Amino acid sequence: MARNITPRQENYSQWYLDVIKAAELADYAPVRGCMVIRPTGYSIWESIQSKFDAAFKKTGHVNAYFPLLIPDSFFRKEAEHVEGFAPELAMVTHAGGEKLEEPYAVRPTSETVIGSMYSKWIQSWRDLPVLINQWCNVMRWEKRPRLFLRTSEFLWQEGHTAHETAQEAREETLRMLEVYRSIIENEIAIPVLAGEKTAGERFPGAVDTYTCEAMMSDTKALQAGTSHFLGQNFAKAFDIQYQNREGELDYCWTTSWGVSTRLIGALIMTHSDDDGLIVPPRIAPVKAAIIPISKDESVAENDILPKAKELSAKLDDELGGMFTKVDTDFHARPADRFFTHLQKGVPLRLELGEKDLAAGTVRIVRRDTGAKIDAANDKVVETVKNLLDEIQSNLFTKAKTFRDNNTHDASSYDELKEIIESKGGFVRAYFGGTPEDETRIREETGATPRVIVPGDHKGKCIITGNEGARLTVFAKAY
Amino acid sequence: MARNITPRQENYSQWYLDVIKAAELADYAPVRGCMVIRPTGYSIWESIQSKFDAAFKKTGHVNAYFPLLIPDSFFRKEAEHVEGFAPELAMVTHAGGEKLEEPYAVRPTSETVIGSMYSKWIQSWRDLPVLINQWCNVMRWEKRPRLFLRTSEFLWQEGHTAHETAQEAREETLRMLEVYRSIIENEIAIPVLAGEKTAGERFPGAVDTYTCEAMMSDTKALQAGTSHFLGQNFAKAFDIQYQNREGELDYCWTTSWGVSTRLIGALIMTHSDDDGLIVPPRIAPVKAAIIPISKDESVAENDILPKAKELSAKLDDELGGMFTKVDTDFHARPADRFFTHLQKGVPLRLELGEKDLAAGTVRIVRRDTGAKIDAANDKVVETVKNLLDEIQSNLFTKAKTFRDNNTHDASSYDELKEIIESKGGFVRAYFGGTPEDETRIREETGATPRVIVPGDHKGKCIITGNEGARLTVFAKAY
Repeated sequence: MARNITPRQENYSQWYLDVIKAAELADYAPVRGCMVIRPTGYSIWESIQSKFDAAFKKTGHVNAYFPLLIPDSFFRKEAEHVEGFAPELAMVTHAGGEKLEEPYAVRPTSETVIGSMYSKWIQSWRDLPVLINQWCNVMRWEKRPRLFLRTSEFLWQEGHTAHETAQEAREETLRMLEVYRSIIENEIAIPVLAGEKTAGERFPGAVDTYTCEAMMSDTKALQAGTSHFLGQNFAKAFDIQYQNREGELDYCWTTSWGVSTRLIGALIMTHSDDDGLIVPPRIAPVKAAIIPISKDESVAENDILPKAKELSAKLDDELGGMFTKVDTDFHARPADRFFTHLQKGVPLRLELGEKDLAAGTVRIVRRDTGAKIDAANDKVVETVKNLLDEIQSNLFTKAKTFRDNNTHDASSYDELKEIIESKGGFVRAYFGGTPEDETRIREETGATPRVIVPGDHKGKCIITGNEGARLTVFAKAY
Repeated sequence: MARNITPRQENYSQWYLDVIKAAELADYAPVRGCMVIRPTGYSIWESIQSKFDAAFKKTGHVNAYFPLLIPDSFFRKEAEHVEGFAPELAMVTHAGGEKLEEPYAVRPTSETVIGSMYSKWIQSWRDLPVLINQWCNVMRWEKRPRLFLRTSEFLWQEGHTAHETAQEAREETLRMLEVYRSIIENEIAIPVLAGEKTAGERFPGAVDTYTCEAMMSDTKALQAGTSHFLGQNFAKAFDIQYQNREGELDYCWTTSWGVSTRLIGALIMTHSDDDGLIVPPRIAPVKAAIIPISKDESVAENDILPKAKELSAKLDDELGGMFTKVDTDFHARPADRFFTHLQKGVPLRLELGEKDLAAGTVRIVRRDTGAKIDAANDKVVETVKNLLDEIQSNLFTKAKTFRDNNTHDASSYDELKEIIESKGGFVRAYFGGTPEDETRIREETGATPRVIVPGDHKGKCIITGNEGARLTVFAKAY
């Protein structure tokens, strides 16, 4: 049993990798920059997926599947899009033993190929809106890979919608931003600032990009989900025309939006501690590990295990959809068995020993605080339920307090530079500059504009000095 | 409203494509040999996936995700495997603006890359069995594509397991074959012969391959799912060794098994008719379409629609997990509205008109037989439930009777040839020949050995004349 997790204070990057390794979430693949998502990590992804998928369906979206490969020429149809993605493309040049006439790119995102299909499917206003989502793998070649955060291949969902009017498309963009915010905050317990991106941080080809921006426990920012208003840019590039209510041909207004396995990286870096992973109860595939223990292995297996299984069935049954796991690693030392579940971030550990059985209690240990509670047998279900709710709420509050404590205001560019350098975190300042100004700030401070603070906050730009600049959060980011 | 489905008798291939088009299941993509799975088709896939995924989890399997790309050299480690897949590979040769040192293949199946990870993860018998499944896209370059049946990219699941003993691995292979048989027969209502493949039809690299073999409504065979006992072939190629209970190093025994979006092709060609798609109720994403109708559009919308919504909610509520859809295409003619749902294969149509409302009844129309039933309001839930059960069972029985009626016995090779040519269908004959004999039979008759009939049927081989040959089904196949 190796408890080899580097403390965060010592080396945050190594801590992150150690947490992933100890929890068996993912592993580097024998393909440059790619990862394997191991069963424990994938079960968290399935849990995240199910929350989003239900919300997409509830808001009228349907799933579909579009091809992995995209003709090279498609990218060239939208100038900004090709410029943004060309450096990251992986190209299929040969197939079936022959050189292809035109190379194909492995999709980095699917606006182009989906646009080409929408152009075929959409004829009239009666066909609108089209509200389609796709769960799939995408590839963006990565020179400095980092598990879950930046890998050459990752899993995600991409929503692509087409509408009659700009207003409808804008409403859709914001509706999905709110779906993202709500699930990321309420289920994954990660507080986010949901707002607009500055011009320099927009998705290549978008008119406006919105983001859910989170703060990790090293005070760096992480973009956890984005929603784009694409205007008529892709509709014009791919000829997505429809006959409007007046009988005239018009271009659709489109949106796209996505979240990815990056969210698992965000989850790790928001909640986990020096002992390893912490998973918020609503996302945790296993919410409680039940551990029958005794100094005598045969007592544990023959006398206590049946009680543990009974308790597991009772919890699953009465708490509906709650998953418990009974630990049967009797050959290992109790402390090591405890540590395994702790490192995997299971929200609650339920210890069942001879003393507990005799006393008619179960010892419950919280993953987030380490607090130990002895619950009487007839109170276990209620106690577990309440503790899971408390842990969920505690993790969110803790992360929000941390973010708020690490958010600062700067009234000048010098002050912004100073805070980024000395304290890090989120720095709020009025900004009304150009993408070129953003580049300069990044080169000089390492920070980028992450999100425009929601609400009508206007003031004097710290770069140009012009009035009417919007309050913007700057930070170093993943 | 185009009712342009070519009759099966006239042109079966065109009928198949017309059914897909009319139901909006899939479309050819602007990438050679690839398809787009449209929302209606994808919702059937989601339904199929959920049945299999639940069964995999119930039998102790967990999901994970392995990389899309596989180093070219990996294929060469297993001689039969590379020979089988090399002609179908799509190769990534450039990425991130540079030529790759070693080209990567887009996975056609993942035994190799998963084997390389198992070699890292598995150390001791305590790590076994490893029971992992992956849902993903795969690519096998296809020169003669056909929607759902043969496309260069398709979606599937691939299970990959590693065990201590040959016996355990063999049991796993047969366990998953039975999971496949049970879901394909009981949920998708497709009768199959679940048994072993002959040597010439084995998966490249497998010791034994088992299949679920179905008959389509043109009497051709379709392989609906396969399960492979891989022996120690891949364990040796990828060095998957473990310390056994005696403390010695040993190679694992592995299996792999998969079903794909091909099952949607099988569903179409088993159940559908000249009016279009028929989806078995247990798989149907929409089990009943409720259609409020009136000559007066405003009556339909204002008076009848609320009743339809009420009925929909009642059915969903009381039949739990049953999905109804209320049709609101009031601008279309009732006959066209009926036909839309009919072409999409919705099991039941519930018509709600002024007369029905006055009489306190609902008119229910079965998709499979066209039978019309007027159910009293207080009997609607029960009637719908019973009808769905009846349709499910009717579809299976009909397909099984069709298969049995089109299965013939041949006692000589000449007879086999004659039956294949004159009648088609499944031809049962004793066969104990070599892969070369199989090639000769295919070249001379167009038929291949599809499956060895389960049970201990032995006799004199129609090719070699040797005794002890196994009763084998021959057929032309998709």
